[in-house]
Amino acid sequence: MQDRPNVGYRILSASTLTDYLATLRVARDRLGGRPNEWRIRDVADGNLNSVFLVDGPDGGLCVKQALPYVRVHGESWPLDINRAVYENAYAERLAPHVGSLAPAIFHFDAEQFVIVMEKLEPHIILRKALIDGVHYPQVPAAVAEYVAKASFFTSDLAAPFEAKASDIALFSRNVYLQRISADLIFIDPYETVWRNKVIEPHLSAWADAFREDLDLKAAVARLRALYFGKAQSLIHGDLHTGSVMVTPEDTRVIDGEFAWVGPSGFDVGNFIAHYVMAWFGKGYQAGDIRERMAFRELIAADIVAFHETYRRRFLEIWRSETKVGDAYPAAHFASPAGEARLESLRQAYVDDIFRDAIGFLALKVIRRVLGYAQIADFLVIEDQEAQARAKAGALALARSLLLHPDRYNDIAAVADALPRFDDIGLDPRPSRTW
Amino acid sequence: MQDRPNVGYRILSASTLTDYLATLRVARDRLGGRPNEWRIRDVADGNLNSVFLVDGPDGGLCVKQALPYVRVHGESWPLDINRAVYENAYAERLAPHVGSLAPAIFHFDAEQFVIVMEKLEPHIILRKALIDGVHYPQVPAAVAEYVAKASFFTSDLAAPFEAKASDIALFSRNVYLQRISADLIFIDPYETVWRNKVIEPHLSAWADAFREDLDLKAAVARLRALYFGKAQSLIHGDLHTGSVMVTPEDTRVIDGEFAWVGPSGFDVGNFIAHYVMAWFGKGYQAGDIRERMAFRELIAADIVAFHETYRRRFLEIWRSETKVGDAYPAAHFASPAGEARLESLRQAYVDDIFRDAIGFLALKVIRRVLGYAQIADFLVIEDQEAQARAKAGALALARSLLLHPDRYNDIAAVADALPRFDDIGLDPRPSRTW
Repeated sequence: MQDRPNVGYRILSASTLTDYLATLRVARDRLGGRPNEWRIRDVADGNLNSVFLVDGPDGGLCVKQALPYVRVHGESWPLDINRAVYENAYAERLAPHVGSLAPAIFHFDAEQFVIVMEKLEPHIILRKALIDGVHYPQVPAAVAEYVAKASFFTSDLAAPFEAKASDIALFSRNVYLQRISADLIFIDPYETVWRNKVIEPHLSAWADAFREDLDLKAAVARLRALYFGKAQSLIHGDLHTGSVMVTPEDTRVIDGEFAWVGPSGFDVGNFIAHYVMAWFGKGYQAGDIRERMAFRELIAADIVAFHETYRRRFLEIWRSETKVGDAYPAAHFASPAGEARLESLRQAYVDDIFRDAIGFLALKVIRRVLGYAQIADFLVIEDQEAQARAKAGALALARSLLLHPDRYNDIAAVADALPRFDDIGLDPRPSRTW
Repeated sequence: MQDRPNVGYRILSASTLTDYLATLRVARDRLGGRPNEWRIRDVADGNLNSVFLVDGPDGGLCVKQALPYVRVHGESWPLDINRAVYENAYAERLAPHVGSLAPAIFHFDAEQFVIVMEKLEPHIILRKALIDGVHYPQVPAAVAEYVAKASFFTSDLAAPFEAKASDIALFSRNVYLQRISADLIFIDPYETVWRNKVIEPHLSAWADAFREDLDLKAAVARLRALYFGKAQSLIHGDLHTGSVMVTPEDTRVIDGEFAWVGPSGFDVGNFIAHYVMAWFGKGYQAGDIRERMAFRELIAADIVAFHETYRRRFLEIWRSETKVGDAYPAAHFASPAGEARLESLRQAYVDDIFRDAIGFLALKVIRRVLGYAQIADFLVIEDQEAQARAKAGALALARSLLLHPDRYNDIAAVADALPRFDDIGLDPRPSRTW
């Protein structure tokens, strides 16, 4: 059973937050002035938690509180409040490595499940930028740097295995949020489940085809096993374009409550998946057609840039690290020939991450189109048939990635495939062999 | 740092054990009579712990106490005393599934790190039977049944992923014993390390060849990554022929203190490895040559029987279980075609375990020949050169398994290979391509 909040737990509101923050030295110091000078804004726009921005004479803060239920749904959907514990632990674990690519954490209150952190302003959610057609060219490289560092430094490449075992022991308890991932990503979209949100009737044929496709479901089974059984590095677990906040100069990854020790390719594939969906959504969103097509080019280039940077940085970090991990003991590869072999093993390691990423990319697309948690990139397309057509293209690419992974040996192949699946239509049959 | 025993901890001896047991109702009930009627024997013959057998008028008990150091080495080699906690937790976790294939646990004392369990008598250690040339034909099927049930029921095949996550959270803390496995199995044999015990000069060329073989070390790196990163099921972690006790009618698996959530193939390969070494040792042990050659035939047949039974039982259990695991959701494979596909996925699953087992088999041979912890199957061969020749055959097969795994697609191929590597000699070069 999920833990219940302790008796001292109180759900904070804009009106009670001032008194709460006044008890915290770190809040008083950072905000400055007197509590009655603090300005509080309720800015919760995710699905799960309360979020407030607070401004004082000297500075600002962000206050995030976990609720014992899913905020967007209400008390009838209980949700483990300890997600704040895991989000905080994830942020603490990565802070030494990712630095200012994530917001600084100032305080964690284990009784109120409150995280007090750096206020990100004037940052906007990356997804909004993509929908609005505003391009932030530094984002792919920044997120790639974040993921490269996270997936290297929390793996057996960078530390004795005991470090990862310690992460595993902690994050393996984060099962309530993982149950959401298990159901919404890996199980529901391939079944008839009440909470799936398929556009009827336009996408019914696609949903039926996926439910009936045994090759597809066998590929999904393989990836599900990897998610729950490949303990490669500490992953964010929900790294989509809604978990990245940006300004023209700054990029931050937020919301690590789905943290888990899993396959490194999961975060990589998830992030790419949301660019892929942004690309397909762009074909049917409102606005000038030439601008939208030009923005698509930027998105496709960003996909390549993201993965190329990820791969390059991961390898650079590995080559430059003094070898303290257990995975490749220094003495095993000490000779010149050994160093050459190690380099080919490094290439094989990142190839393996890419293969996994391709699969998870596909699954994240499918769950956003046929599952419960839909995304604005498609939802802003008001005409239901048009929205279905945008989604069908993404589904067709996802299916191709799962059924024909050997055709996608590098990220350029994925980017090149985007136009091939554009406007694929509402009949799922013709493109199955593509 | 390793936990220190609490202040109340006392190392039990044959003379203090009676008073200790007299405080335990379960001991008084099972032994019967009065404490001064209880007969105590110190029977420690493993490397790590104190073990006593106790007999009373009504029955017997086995008492195992973890020491804060390696018993066979002394206090200068400290060892986490919590290994008793993991051994007990492992036994408790498996008891509902493996039943009388393991000794019953009657009591666990978390302050004294004492496990009071079923006395196994007149059981002997399986390794001794193999060395003495006494054949117990039921053993391979019994151990196969144990490993099949353990590796099925603690995997994502048999239960929602949360069950395995709970095991992972617990056994991921068992790092002090895993550090021993990391070093002695996966790292030391491929380096020049003080504690390696290579027969000089006879096996020097083999040890050098393995240290210099980059293909071999790359294969070892892959398996090391699986051991620390493939969280497939709860494994025993030390399932050799010294961890099995037998009578002509009864087979028990003991000593689960190396328990870990890892690749299911690890226990499978470990057990086979020790039969393989028994086979090679038998070529040079004392005794009648015809008897020894005939016993080799039995060992080779046991290897096949063990794995065939493991594979068959694993599949039978899977087919008969109501599908509650997250790995293959029932609705994904509900149709007749789905059931047929699921059957081929089952075959792929056990094929994957076999592939992993072949690799771990090789690593367990190598660590027993070139590493610190040697085994009696070879050590009873007094002539050092003869012992080296027996070991060289095992090394040659191990290398072939690592370099040419595609030649070993089933267990019969492994058994067939045994004579090919017999008497391979002290020069490692000619057989490298075999």
